[in-house]
Amino acid sequence: MRIEVICTGDELLNGLTTDTNSPYFMGRLFALGERVAQAQTVGDVRDEIVRALKSASARALAVLVSGGLGPTADDLTAECAAAAAGVPLVEHQPTLELIRDRFAKRGLKFTENNARQARVPQGAEVVRNPVGTAPMFIQKIGGCTVYFVPGVPREYRALVDEQVLPRIARLLEQEPNRVFRASRLLKTVGLPESHLDAMVAPLAKMHPQVAFGFRTHAPENHLRLLAEAKSQADADRALLEAERACETLLGAYLFGKDHDCFGAVVGSLLRREQATLAVAESLTGGKIAELITEEPGSSEYFLGSAVAYHESLKQRWAGVAAELLADFGAVSKEAALSMAEGVRAQAAARYGLSVTGFAGPGGGTAADPVGTVYYALTGPTGSEAQRVFFPGDRERVRSFAAYQALDFLRRRLIGV
Amino acid sequence: MRIEVICTGDELLNGLTTDTNSPYFMGRLFALGERVAQAQTVGDVRDEIVRALKSASARALAVLVSGGLGPTADDLTAECAAAAAGVPLVEHQPTLELIRDRFAKRGLKFTENNARQARVPQGAEVVRNPVGTAPMFIQKIGGCTVYFVPGVPREYRALVDEQVLPRIARLLEQEPNRVFRASRLLKTVGLPESHLDAMVAPLAKMHPQVAFGFRTHAPENHLRLLAEAKSQADADRALLEAERACETLLGAYLFGKDHDCFGAVVGSLLRREQATLAVAESLTGGKIAELITEEPGSSEYFLGSAVAYHESLKQRWAGVAAELLADFGAVSKEAALSMAEGVRAQAAARYGLSVTGFAGPGGGTAADPVGTVYYALTGPTGSEAQRVFFPGDRERVRSFAAYQALDFLRRRLIGV
Repeated sequence: MRIEVICTGDELLNGLTTDTNSPYFMGRLFALGERVAQAQTVGDVRDEIVRALKSASARALAVLVSGGLGPTADDLTAECAAAAAGVPLVEHQPTLELIRDRFAKRGLKFTENNARQARVPQGAEVVRNPVGTAPMFIQKIGGCTVYFVPGVPREYRALVDEQVLPRIARLLEQEPNRVFRASRLLKTVGLPESHLDAMVAPLAKMHPQVAFGFRTHAPENHLRLLAEAKSQADADRALLEAERACETLLGAYLFGKDHDCFGAVVGSLLRREQATLAVAESLTGGKIAELITEEPGSSEYFLGSAVAYHESLKQRWAGVAAELLADFGAVSKEAALSMAEGVRAQAAARYGLSVTGFAGPGGGTAADPVGTVYYALTGPTGSEAQRVFFPGDRERVRSFAAYQALDFLRRRLIGV
Repeated sequence: MRIEVICTGDELLNGLTTDTNSPYFMGRLFALGERVAQAQTVGDVRDEIVRALKSASARALAVLVSGGLGPTADDLTAECAAAAAGVPLVEHQPTLELIRDRFAKRGLKFTENNARQARVPQGAEVVRNPVGTAPMFIQKIGGCTVYFVPGVPREYRALVDEQVLPRIARLLEQEPNRVFRASRLLKTVGLPESHLDAMVAPLAKMHPQVAFGFRTHAPENHLRLLAEAKSQADADRALLEAERACETLLGAYLFGKDHDCFGAVVGSLLRREQATLAVAESLTGGKIAELITEEPGSSEYFLGSAVAYHESLKQRWAGVAAELLADFGAVSKEAALSMAEGVRAQAAARYGLSVTGFAGPGGGTAADPVGTVYYALTGPTGSEAQRVFFPGDRERVRSFAAYQALDFLRRRLIGV
């Protein structure tokens, strides 16, 4: 079954924005056993959008179109869809009322612009957008089914998962010579991408039915396993064998799979032992707290984080003695240990975690240059501090430092 | 001058690999004053590549094609280029010798496969690849100049910078009706995208030489101005006029331009008045601290943030009285005010900023459902608290709450 993708938006053609939507859809579709045959990106230009719609719908059985469904003058997709299908644009009353409601609830003024979002090609099936105002619609162009979704990633993903993929899956089930696929995303932390690649290379040779793909989401590195076979059972079996081999090989570097998030994995380990955590962080500036609190319900195990930039707050919030800071400096193993122990005591938490260091570009010393990070963990089984050096810019140092400290806690919680 | 892009490679269509090459080229080209008109991605399939080459070269004056120039059986680009141009594939002797040399130097066996990389369409101009074995070549297809470069990012970027862009720049200079461009990105906060559009629409009509584009980076909304004219001076002047008009219109909603970051803008306002800031945040879980500390040198004005999830830490780190929490609850105007005043006192800061609320999905009350946020600011001119409601999921509520609180401070600092 031929499936194509069209993305619209000037911002995708001038280097300002990287299209992360399409890889998302492509990966999900691939897991269903089908590959996108072609992708086109066009600007917010009427003729270009219409031409792309006509050419793709002439070749494919299904096309996913994203972007250009917003309320502004450069949102042209609905009218181009109507033009390509040869039907007029009409106002969809239920959508119009939904948008009016939403604005009323927020106390915002409803403008004529907003009504634009309720206009769809005549005959289109309109699907409610659970997370935004622009509706999704489905329109036949010739023999091709075209799915139109907003380009805002949150809305795109929700609609792709809940609406587009289930519909395509039903079409695929009717296909005669199907290839069956199964895939798994393995997520690692603490391994550079080149090491991960080198470690895994021998395994790839031992599992010829499985393709191994690598992607870096620094500080995480991900390994994608993709099995192909003539039946779903064979694909599942090949995948499982490769996955087990990877698990053995990667050990504690492997922190999660598929949709697991790093902060949530650490959180679930804390929850498992009904433990609580308090954090004292400086150079990471709240990143550890943010990683942990992304997860709903994190208040069960996360008590708080003292983001203590100034020395007086390291003293006040994390109980670090002024003399210790004077003797060893705020970026030291001693300061890290004292921060972890102090914040643990203040919050009456089971675990205290801390991180301090030089994110740069300014600061640092001869012994501890920019990129030097100290982190410490204290808990029922004792206290430990480590030093690590991260090359790279401020943002890289900050995010690697946050991951390194949380990973220290994760490893303690899983006992490695 | 119409320029298009074609990327080849199965891995770009199955979600395993995100195309980061094209945004690179697009951004560089845009800086030269030209925009890519369309991008296509096709798999390693002969017919698809030939069709993409033919359609793009029929429309455009220049096309950049990447991928499929390697030594393996699924590297089909050179033979497809020959087919699209209607010429045979020939072996390019200097390239063949270079590849043989390279293999000999590394002590690797030269296989028949490797000779594939020396085959190019007859008449093509071959350009040496400074960082890899696959050569770049340039082939006319009809009236269009097509640049073929490897897809390996390091090789792609080197050849784009050193070979493709200088050649396109020369073509642009010879354009009889050359268009000169100038652009500016205006960044707003506090305005929904549709309101921004409605406000700006009359201006767009008054500045016909300038295109107005919108892009949401929630909670920020961006307005891109792009002026086109027959000379650079005219483009610059048209841009400046539109920019001034937007500045007047948007007033305090406009927080920055181009590469300005929100946290850094607030930071520079604090620095300007040599002020310091302390924060107490709960539902935002460190996001305010993170926004502020992204900026190098933020320790000059940022003292710290008490990420106080647990009530005991709201008391200890932000001096909120237990009775107040018992009487009004932790999500209340009173708690927000007390947090701001308490953290300001503890840190001896000029400004104290706080935010508390229900991020969801659990929690909330009938009067204050999930999405309710209270935030407060205290400083030399007094204290003020506000209530706001954000619809949407946990992540959305958290990031809008962080922006709303920081924007409250920004507005106080600029005196609006």
